[in-house]
Order: sequence, then C-alpha cells, then structure tokens
Amino acid sequence: MSGAEGDPGRFAALPEPPYYAVIFSSLRTEAAGYDEMADRMMDLACREPGFLGAESTRDADGFGITVSYWRDHGAIAAWRRDAEHMAAQTMGREQFYAAFRIRIALVERSNDWDKPK
Amino acid sequence: MSGAEGDPGRFAALPEPPYYAVIFSSLRTEAAGYDEMADRMMDLACREPGFLGAESTRDADGFGITVSYWRDHGAIAAWRRDAEHMAAQTMGREQFYAAFRIRIALVERSNDWDKPK
Repeated sequence: MSGAEGDPGRFAALPEPPYYAVIFSSLRTEAAGYDEMADRMMDLACREPGFLGAESTRDADGFGITVSYWRDHGAIAAWRRDAEHMAAQTMGREQFYAAFRIRIALVERSNDWDKPK
Repeated sequence: MSGAEGDPGRFAALPEPPYYAVIFSSLRTEAAGYDEMADRMMDLACREPGFLGAESTRDADGFGITVSYWRDHGAIAAWRRDAEHMAAQTMGREQFYAAFRIRIALVERSNDWDKPK
C-alpha cells in the first residue's frame, strides 16, 4: 500500500471505484494482547484475494475506526470465514471489545487530496 | 445520537440500511484551531436535513477517520454546498490537512454488537 507522499503508510492506495468498504468502529477494553492480534489480522487480510487496502486509527479513549476495502462481496465473505480470523473474532467479543459496529458499503466515488509541495 | 450503553457518545445510532456513508480519512498538520473548526462543523452537520449520525476518531500521530452517515446523495450534496462548510473546507486545505481521502459509499448492511452485561 502506498498513499500520501508525506505518509505512505496510513492511506490506502485504491483503484477507481466501485469496490466495497467494511467500516468497523469499535470501543476497546483494556485487555492485553490486542495490538498483536490486530497486527496479525492485518497481515492476514493483506494476503486475501480481493483485499484492496485498509486505513485504521484509534484514539487514547480506545475508540477506533478501521475501514478495509475489498473487490467484491465474495472477498469479504471469504475473509469473514478465514479460520484464524474467526478465532480472532471470538477473542474480540470475549476480550478486546466493549462494543463494535460493522457496516458493509459499496464505494461509488472517491476523491484524493494531497497538499501541494 | 445514542449508541453502546457504555459509551453513548461514540457510536452513531443509525436506521436500517440502505443509507450513505462519507468516509473521510485525513492526516492533520499541527496548525492551531482545528478542534474548534471540527466541533463547529459537527454541530452544523447535525442540523442538516438527511444527516443520520457520525463516528470520528484520531490518533496521536494526527491520522483520523470520520464517517458521517446520510439519507441520500442529495443530503450529502447540500452539506457540501453549505457556505460555512465550504469556508471550512478551504481552511482545511490551506491549514489543517496534509492530505485527505473522501469516499462516498452506499451502506447495504450493518451489524451492531455490544458486550452482554
């Protein structure tokens, strides 16, 4: 993934729409081990066919939003059924999250802006 | 807006899909005055017809994601043309943002989860 010249790691480099977004907003608990799980899941997702990119952030209060981008519904469904991801989803509900929301959306348009040098 | 019982302020309380999402990811500069502008824009957006809710977070590195939810394209277009919002968009490009991405998406499905008490 590449993105803004000034910060290549944070923005997803996506193709022209249409494609799908999985908008995952969550409130964390203080359980240990979250960062390792989250890093591992991002590594795994990147290897899924149909994964296009992701952007993620979380504030000091533990409220986070991760948006992952996918080629189509089939790619999202396959990732949801990945065995290690399913185990992480269970751990998420049992340990890491106080609440979450998932919204599946079809991206119709996009606009990128980078400050001129 | 209400949301998770434990944290009513962070999750948007949305109707059943379909509705639209504006996914705004941004990398901030260190210019002063951002929080006041952002608070004012959220106050204004909440009063727009067709505004359904929003979720927003930003980490210590200045990378943030705000997802606002809207009834339809017309509501998004009206908000984009709001005069005070247009002035804020200009200030955003001139002062507050190093880069941003905007993606307009049709939310097809949603799933809410709150930890059982």
